[in-house]
Amino acid sequence: MDIVFSDRHRDHDPQSFVVRGQIAAAQEVPERGRILHDAVAAAGFPLCEPQAHGLAPIARVHTPEYLDFLIHGHERRRALPGAGPEIIANAYPGRHMSARPDGVVGQAGYHMADGACPLGAGTWNAAEAAADVALSAADRLLDGATAAFALCRPPGHHAFRDMAGGFCFLNNVAIAAEHLLPRFGRAAILDFDVHHGNGTQGIFYERDDVFFASIHADPINYYPWFAGYAGERGTGAGLGYNLNLPMPPGTGDDGFVAGVESLLAAIGRFDPNVLLVSAGFDAQENDPLGVFKVTTDGFRRIGETIGAFARAHELPGLLVQEGGYVCAELGDNLVAFLKGFEG
Amino acid sequence: MDIVFSDRHRDHDPQSFVVRGQIAAAQEVPERGRILHDAVAAAGFPLCEPQAHGLAPIARVHTPEYLDFLIHGHERRRALPGAGPEIIANAYPGRHMSARPDGVVGQAGYHMADGACPLGAGTWNAAEAAADVALSAADRLLDGATAAFALCRPPGHHAFRDMAGGFCFLNNVAIAAEHLLPRFGRAAILDFDVHHGNGTQGIFYERDDVFFASIHADPINYYPWFAGYAGERGTGAGLGYNLNLPMPPGTGDDGFVAGVESLLAAIGRFDPNVLLVSAGFDAQENDPLGVFKVTTDGFRRIGETIGAFARAHELPGLLVQEGGYVCAELGDNLVAFLKGFEG
Repeated sequence: MDIVFSDRHRDHDPQSFVVRGQIAAAQEVPERGRILHDAVAAAGFPLCEPQAHGLAPIARVHTPEYLDFLIHGHERRRALPGAGPEIIANAYPGRHMSARPDGVVGQAGYHMADGACPLGAGTWNAAEAAADVALSAADRLLDGATAAFALCRPPGHHAFRDMAGGFCFLNNVAIAAEHLLPRFGRAAILDFDVHHGNGTQGIFYERDDVFFASIHADPINYYPWFAGYAGERGTGAGLGYNLNLPMPPGTGDDGFVAGVESLLAAIGRFDPNVLLVSAGFDAQENDPLGVFKVTTDGFRRIGETIGAFARAHELPGLLVQEGGYVCAELGDNLVAFLKGFEG
Repeated sequence: MDIVFSDRHRDHDPQSFVVRGQIAAAQEVPERGRILHDAVAAAGFPLCEPQAHGLAPIARVHTPEYLDFLIHGHERRRALPGAGPEIIANAYPGRHMSARPDGVVGQAGYHMADGACPLGAGTWNAAEAAADVALSAADRLLDGATAAFALCRPPGHHAFRDMAGGFCFLNNVAIAAEHLLPRFGRAAILDFDVHHGNGTQGIFYERDDVFFASIHADPINYYPWFAGYAGERGTGAGLGYNLNLPMPPGTGDDGFVAGVESLLAAIGRFDPNVLLVSAGFDAQENDPLGVFKVTTDGFRRIGETIGAFARAHELPGLLVQEGGYVCAELGDNLVAFLKGFEG
């Protein structure tokens, strides 16, 4: 299958990661992109560049004021005293009294969920390229391909319509889904990153044309904490079109594959016309941020399970890179998943 | 007038202050309490210890699950891997998908608005003592005194019913107001800290028996960013019972006193039976966190203006310490305000 990739991901080079009140080194780093790229190149997958799609398909998912912050926030902050190399929020609006301030320091809190999405000078350039990667991979499906892989970086599934978070700025899989919906009508998104895809869930939470299903570590003690529970089933028209499968820390290959199978069964009942997959590899047993024990062979089995389902239901499949952090197995996990998917 | 003070404030000794994604030294430190105490002692004000009031009057303002977090959160966090000396949240629930997680790491984000309210081993002890200070000072009014000063530390006006923030944990002035309401029926709270009292506003936002009026630096580019705008006038039964006067950076004595006078005029129209004052001294021109240019003589004039108003309307006055950070003028500012108030 075609893999779309852009070197522009390197323009997003975050330094800081605020975790438990301390500054740690960033984990969602350009090295990730290099490892993933080199692994699929070495495995012989055809790689191609994205085409520019402009702001219109991005603005179908994200609000104008959020995009304004992502595009211009860094330069505005640099014009004020006390600017560091990247923007991290001071405070967050929370449940109470959440006006959107005109000033960029307050806007950072308004548009960022946590200290894990520092906005640097090149962040917008990289995020826009990642959206173009997802859109260009989606174009392959519109052109009749049965599958394509969008090697996006930065990832997207924690980004809400108007809020970055957890290393994510633009929700690549949601942008691709909106791009595919006019043709396909009904889309399912399966998310197997170890972290719940709270942004994707939030974007489609009131919709009945996009079914969102996620398997992830129980948020009771794990990022993103405030969403990902089994009781979150959608609201309004979307009630019943959201399905979360939180799993306990330590979950290994068998449990994870069984979970994916149960989500696919629910997706089958929804009967979509296209399948999108948020593919994260941080369920790996050695991932620096993970809490699961999935092996490289486990990712092969996950790919195999999803690929067989897509073929059985004649669903074109768009695979989108989410998380998975620097460890010895990272590249192998992606290749194993893609080969498993191809069957 | 009587001043109530407790040495237990020293048990809250925060180290960290997450500001713009960097760790800075804490500003709301025991040294503040020592300076304020020593200044009023040297000026000859009578000082007394608070009486213990138990949890009941605190629980009239704060939710049971928030109090559980404040009381037990630190020990629970210490029992988990990776615990530092104090709790600062990783991530915040924001506008979307805000379940309250069972685990203490996520609860920190749920119950803390920002990185400026680290929860340490002694924080609850000090916060409970500060609430007792406010309650004991309020008792003086119930006993017929015309005025009392609660030298609270940590401060309270950024604390919501279920959320700490901006150096604040328990909302001392709100707790005192609830303690006074059964007797007085209608209370006004005047807040002249340089930061908007967003927590106090939030607590009484739907109420018509408590009028909240605040003068502060415009939140458009200043903490707390997400509240403090002139358009916030209350909601439901509380519509019209909230009044914000945001002022531009650089505001000096004349502008500030004029602003206080306009808030007092509105309070006069509300016609309360008791007046509470959230007294912060961070509008001082040399305050390390301030953006105003109020002088020590300005604080004398503010005290004089409020004291004259209280006497003219025969209102007992409860003065409650909020912010004001370590600078050469801090102790003098408090004494000047109190002497001005006494007339």
